[in-house]
Amino acid sequence: MAEELTHVDEAGAARMVDVSDKRPGARLAVATGVLRTTEEVVSLLRRDGLPKGDALATARIAGIMGAKRTPDLVPLCHPIALAGVVVDLAAEGSDVRITATVRTTDRTGVEMEALTAVTVAGLTLHDMVKAVDPAATLDAVRVERKEGGKTGLWTRPEDR
Amino acid sequence: MAEELTHVDEAGAARMVDVSDKRPGARLAVATGVLRTTEEVVSLLRRDGLPKGDALATARIAGIMGAKRTPDLVPLCHPIALAGVVVDLAAEGSDVRITATVRTTDRTGVEMEALTAVTVAGLTLHDMVKAVDPAATLDAVRVERKEGGKTGLWTRPEDR
Amino acid sequence: MAEELTHVDEAGAARMVDVSDKRPGARLAVATGVLRTTEEVVSLLRRDGLPKGDALATARIAGIMGAKRTPDLVPLCHPIALAGVVVDLAAEGSDVRITATVRTTDRTGVEMEALTAVTVAGLTLHDMVKAVDPAATLDAVRVERKEGGKTGLWTRPEDR
Amino acid sequence: MAEELTHVDEAGAARMVDVSDKRPGARLAVATGVLRTTEEVVSLLRRDGLPKGDALATARIAGIMGAKRTPDLVPLCHPIALAGVVVDLAAEGSDVRITATVRTTDRTGVEMEALTAVTVAGLTLHDMVKAVDPAATLDAVRVERKEGGKTGLWTRPEDR
Amino acid sequence: MAEELTHVDEAGAARMVDVSDKRPGARLAVATGVLRTTEEVVSLLRRDGLPKGDALATARIAGIMGAKRTPDLVPLCHPIALAGVVVDLAAEGSDVRITATVRTTDRTGVEMEALTAVTVAGLTLHDMVKAVDPAATLDAVRVERKEGGKTGLWTRPEDR
Amino acid sequence: MAEELTHVDEAGAARMVDVSDKRPGARLAVATGVLRTTEEVVSLLRRDGLPKGDALATARIAGIMGAKRTPDLVPLCHPIALAGVVVDLAAEGSDVRITATVRTTDRTGVEMEALTAVTVAGLTLHDMVKAVDPAATLDAVRVERKEGGKTGLWTRPEDR
Repeated sequence: MAEELTHVDEAGAARMVDVSDKRPGARLAVATGVLRTTEEVVSLLRRDGLPKGDALATARIAGIMGAKRTPDLVPLCHPIALAGVVVDLAAEGSDVRITATVRTTDRTGVEMEALTAVTVAGLTLHDMVKAVDPAATLDAVRVERKEGGKTGLWTRPEDR
Repeated sequence: MAEELTHVDEAGAARMVDVSDKRPGARLAVATGVLRTTEEVVSLLRRDGLPKGDALATARIAGIMGAKRTPDLVPLCHPIALAGVVVDLAAEGSDVRITATVRTTDRTGVEMEALTAVTVAGLTLHDMVKAVDPAATLDAVRVERKEGGKTGLWTRPEDR
Repeated sequence: MAEELTHVDEAGAARMVDVSDKRPGARLAVATGVLRTTEEVVSLLRRDGLPKGDALATARIAGIMGAKRTPDLVPLCHPIALAGVVVDLAAEGSDVRITATVRTTDRTGVEMEALTAVTVAGLTLHDMVKAVDPAATLDAVRVERKEGGKTGLWTRPEDR
Repeated sequence: MAEELTHVDEAGAARMVDVSDKRPGARLAVATGVLRTTEEVVSLLRRDGLPKGDALATARIAGIMGAKRTPDLVPLCHPIALAGVVVDLAAEGSDVRITATVRTTDRTGVEMEALTAVTVAGLTLHDMVKAVDPAATLDAVRVERKEGGKTGLWTRPEDR
Repeated sequence: MAEELTHVDEAGAARMVDVSDKRPGARLAVATGVLRTTEEVVSLLRRDGLPKGDALATARIAGIMGAKRTPDLVPLCHPIALAGVVVDLAAEGSDVRITATVRTTDRTGVEMEALTAVTVAGLTLHDMVKAVDPAATLDAVRVERKEGGKTGLWTRPEDR
Repeated sequence: MAEELTHVDEAGAARMVDVSDKRPGARLAVATGVLRTTEEVVSLLRRDGLPKGDALATARIAGIMGAKRTPDLVPLCHPIALAGVVVDLAAEGSDVRITATVRTTDRTGVEMEALTAVTVAGLTLHDMVKAVDPAATLDAVRVERKEGGKTGLWTRPEDR
């Protein structure tokens, strides 16, 4: 692991790190997060029995689109080609658990794209429930797993 | 408080709610969140003693710019004029606490803009520390306070 | 009706027309279009009986988001506040009929926003069906009705 | 040809399909569409004899820029590198016929980019003529030809 | 005139200044700049005698669209409604002189929008001539005149 | 060097040139520019002795983000992958000198990305100083050096 911040130079100035020498290759990142709200709100989000259930679909699609906007949002992220994005939402009890899986064949990892997908899906859920539960909270947004690249497989340590 | 999701119609279809009848007026929202990492990383982010300290500045600026991108990211959010955005970062112990305050004089509240500022600042911090601490987590992203509009002052209840 | 193109000056140069003197006020535009495909594809899009029916939801949401991107896409369009956007999809026979209704309280009409919502919803449907029916066609994208502004109500003449 | 929608999974949830295993290679797509208006309007658009003829140029440029915005607009489209974009406008009689040719050397086809170029050029024409002919209609937006990729050459069947 | 930078607070942190208390009203800004190249290149840009003269049109349109992107590009700029944008190009000798006039009825001045229109038009000209004259230079990008708002009329002093 | 504008065809119509046949490879471009203001303003920008110095950081970050937006701004630019971006600001006397270095491994040069980084950094500086010095001027925006691609090394001739 690095011992210095890679995104600032020795004087402290921000930079987009040069990745010219990194090899293209298959990479994957999985990130998760959870929107904590109430059981009533989760029931409204699921809309069981209604002909259209756009609430969760809206968050799924917003998450996928959010992954594509990562380099527009995170200043020092490289613009890269994304090979695939899946956003899964599991609504149970008073929580909606968000999981994003992002794949690339490009030169950098896609943790930031996966994290951005999770947060944009979470913001979208928040937007939809805020009139009913303004106190909803987006929690535990983090990377669970990375594959590919020079560092290979990384899984989240249990004590973090 | 509403008892139904306002962003979907009775059949469950998503829509951008008509706010033509809402009055323009001064509104404010404060949102917070926290990036949990390690003491070593927080020390690197603060860069005490270095001539340039762009790490925290990058996150502050990304948060401000993120607030402006809210309607691009959150599908059912109205595009509105923002009158002011402040993003404050407090780096202490192993945490960076993020606070965003957004003001408008337009027709809708700005909770989503404040929440988006917090999450984009948090994603940007994550991007900068990920080579040193890939297990960093963005937690407790939530609205603390709203002022203005028809509902007036709202502060987060202590039990949520 | 105008007898000259308003968006170019007397020498033919493009410009964003000055609307400083126009009054803000409630305006509405309704636009429609139709994706012509096959009965089999329409049946796949409706996904009757499946737990999630994201195909039509994706197009609805893309249309709503597309309305917000209008000034980014159409060079001489004014960036304006949108008060509400509804995109309705009716899948019957071999067609999906798209209707977008856009409202504003700003200084210009919202025909372009309604037309953009229809076309982006149509493009999104095309994207989803293209592996099954690459010959799908987006037809008859047009304004049906406008209300508000100096010209007041306009409805499409029957002979056009 | 596929028999299922590729952009939703077996439960119906939307996803950006994983193309990691597709080979990069030269691909091309040609799409067309037509703006139907009046002879008078077509004459105004052509501006014969005027020193500057920005009306058609504005639509051509908007179409080229629109092709680049495809992944921002169409939720499940991959962000890819475009190698070339040409938008041709033929104004004759009461119609403006739009043809877009898009090339890539990336992992996916570029039908959506070609269709987006056609529709954004068409929307831009509509914007310019709407004060003179609010009833103008964008018709017959469709793919005419694709080359490259696993499926190779595809041309539009005559009966569609 | 201010004696402190308004865009950073007393500790030096960047912020989007609160303009809630500013009054909406008609404002205008004129900015100019010049692309210095060669007489041969200016002649190519003007394309006298050719049926289509898209080179200068492309720069004009890019400048107008650039004005709309100002808050996306300049971190601390407010997103505001633009009421009108004109970009004028005068190609003479070895120079192309760019003039942008931007109008609003909103709460802030539009100098930055006018400057952004000039620079984006200038970048676009540079892009078009760079294969012929890679040494072209964009010079003297500056505000010439402002009207409206609390400070009223400002014209550039002759000694600057 | 070319003798015709590459970005318009023989009839004068704008196009995004086909680069399918160009080889990917390491390329670099360095561009510079200078914001001319006053000694007092330069001193305010440097904020020596203050805990946070976000003014210059804001311009650095805006420049980096601006490089990524180049294909959104410059109509005929190809969307390409950027491998690295550095923006350096040197504030001395009454000037702030801006230098941007951009790297890619893609199919086109990155002069436009470097020039866009310089101009967006310059616009951002202008935005921050405009309340103190509305007469500030962005000057001498130009390419200094290119490496890679078919043409190889190019350095700015001394007489331009």
